[in-house]
Amino acid sequence: MEATKRVGSQTVKFQFPPQIISSSSIVGPKEGKGPLGSNFDKVLKKSLYNEQTWEKAEQKILQESIEMAIDKGNLTLKDIDYLLAGDLLNQIISSNFTARALGIPFLGIFGACSTMIEGLGLGSMIIDGGFADHVVIGASSHYDTAERQFRFPTELGTQRPLTAQWTVTGAGAAVLGRTEQNLPRITYATIGKVVDKGIKDANDMGAAMAPAVADTIVTHLKDTGRSPDFYDLIISGDLGMIGKVLCERLVKAQGYDISENYADCGVLIFDPSQDTHAGGSGCACAATVLSGYILKEMNRGRYKTIFIVGSGALLSPTSTLQGESIPGIGHGVAIEM
Amino acid sequence: MEATKRVGSQTVKFQFPPQIISSSSIVGPKEGKGPLGSNFDKVLKKSLYNEQTWEKAEQKILQESIEMAIDKGNLTLKDIDYLLAGDLLNQIISSNFTARALGIPFLGIFGACSTMIEGLGLGSMIIDGGFADHVVIGASSHYDTAERQFRFPTELGTQRPLTAQWTVTGAGAAVLGRTEQNLPRITYATIGKVVDKGIKDANDMGAAMAPAVADTIVTHLKDTGRSPDFYDLIISGDLGMIGKVLCERLVKAQGYDISENYADCGVLIFDPSQDTHAGGSGCACAATVLSGYILKEMNRGRYKTIFIVGSGALLSPTSTLQGESIPGIGHGVAIEM
Repeated sequence: MEATKRVGSQTVKFQFPPQIISSSSIVGPKEGKGPLGSNFDKVLKKSLYNEQTWEKAEQKILQESIEMAIDKGNLTLKDIDYLLAGDLLNQIISSNFTARALGIPFLGIFGACSTMIEGLGLGSMIIDGGFADHVVIGASSHYDTAERQFRFPTELGTQRPLTAQWTVTGAGAAVLGRTEQNLPRITYATIGKVVDKGIKDANDMGAAMAPAVADTIVTHLKDTGRSPDFYDLIISGDLGMIGKVLCERLVKAQGYDISENYADCGVLIFDPSQDTHAGGSGCACAATVLSGYILKEMNRGRYKTIFIVGSGALLSPTSTLQGESIPGIGHGVAIEM
Repeated sequence: MEATKRVGSQTVKFQFPPQIISSSSIVGPKEGKGPLGSNFDKVLKKSLYNEQTWEKAEQKILQESIEMAIDKGNLTLKDIDYLLAGDLLNQIISSNFTARALGIPFLGIFGACSTMIEGLGLGSMIIDGGFADHVVIGASSHYDTAERQFRFPTELGTQRPLTAQWTVTGAGAAVLGRTEQNLPRITYATIGKVVDKGIKDANDMGAAMAPAVADTIVTHLKDTGRSPDFYDLIISGDLGMIGKVLCERLVKAQGYDISENYADCGVLIFDPSQDTHAGGSGCACAATVLSGYILKEMNRGRYKTIFIVGSGALLSPTSTLQGESIPGIGHGVAIEM
């Protein structure tokens, strides 16, 4: 048996495209006040969410969002064959504790802020390969847990440069499977390569990730033979305002013009008046914007075909201290009605 | 299309079982002096391996072992569709930098010390699902990087309790695919659930992981209808001397006697005279013992059927400081000639 579902160099085409049966999104107070605020399923009043630590708050919203997605799909935990989840915290601890609470078979994944899309790609392979009927995918991030792990504790009040992005407090989840209904389907997955152009500034992650995302977009278009205008929307995960411009230019330099239909979740989720500088970031950025906004717009009929590329900055607190540059990765899935 | 490859509650059966085409193992000096020392492909003279930091040394051996496995399979990087890799360091940084160097599509995974077996299970699904011809899986750990991240910097000379295990310095890799040759095949994968019995001591990880491994062994036997003596060898990843005894008892309490053919990679890799206390641990423990020893013994004809369960302790430095207990997970694959 050959790898019959491969298309081009890095893309797979699903034979019986899995559907996104249901999805959910929970965000923090700041995200709730942003332009997409009314779309999310739940907005926290406080980012500590009645817990003793921000880490426990992050775990709680990840678990809640996964339970909510399963519930919205009229399913129970017993129907779910695998949980695929990851987050930005060391050893993906939010996901580990969530898997402990849910008690279903768990595959831990890590693609930094591209984790949700990595999970959608892998989960689709698991279902289309005949290994599961239902897979749930989840990803989370939290401004205060991420800042104190990767940069400075927020209590310090360290001034943020204008290239900095604001880690989204939130969690998103999606259930994959198959139904008789007309629901969004994952038709292709393009798994990214790591690209590193030497950016060393943990406060300029858009620039660090843009080359990898551009590479995945161009590769996907080449692999599938589609032109950019095939898609109603091409959207990246969390390049922010600086990374988005860079990505668009890098894609154009390779002969593809995406300026008409290209957006970025990190640009959409905050308004410039919210003082987040270059926009949103974090695993929850792509996860909540996809679950809370894009998929709803697809189900409402606004978009029929989208290509979403999760963007991950593969740094660690230790690698930053040791003077390493920040490798980027972009994982993409095509979603079609 | 239904999930036709599922067997029982948590197990999948591969339709065309992928082969382990080649594998490789690199270990540190201490592991080289252990009982299995002569089996490993390469033994480092010094654990810093001519690098400026232990982190860079760990990344270097992970990369080398993956390149070595591909080379031993008479393949090149161009033949490999996906790299699946993970390690114990924050944000799996050794794997990220390795993926950067190799430049092939990368799926980051994290199952703590069960990562290698999680990768073999996922990689087999990807191949058997028709999404790839060749997948390479790699995992690494390093005594000095793990100690300073999870416990104390080794320069401090902190006394280790007798329940402590010694993180294996090393890296293992395996290439999955299909050939006409008679090579070990992955026939089943049993993906684990997270189990947590409340152990809070980061120096007693065998006890923290044993319940999850026992759960996966019992589930696998129930799902497949096999009895323990079907296997020439049932082997856990890194329970060590204390965890191994606990696991055997927990499995027996559920009606299965594995005492005749049960071993643990963490017990095998060091001799008690090496002062490692409860034995070896770390992602590289299962990865190098499987790649360097077990698979060679299978190809030599000593074992025909094995079931290996990678054991992961899903703690983080932050969760330990916040007083959380340590959840465990066990991922298993059956390998048969």
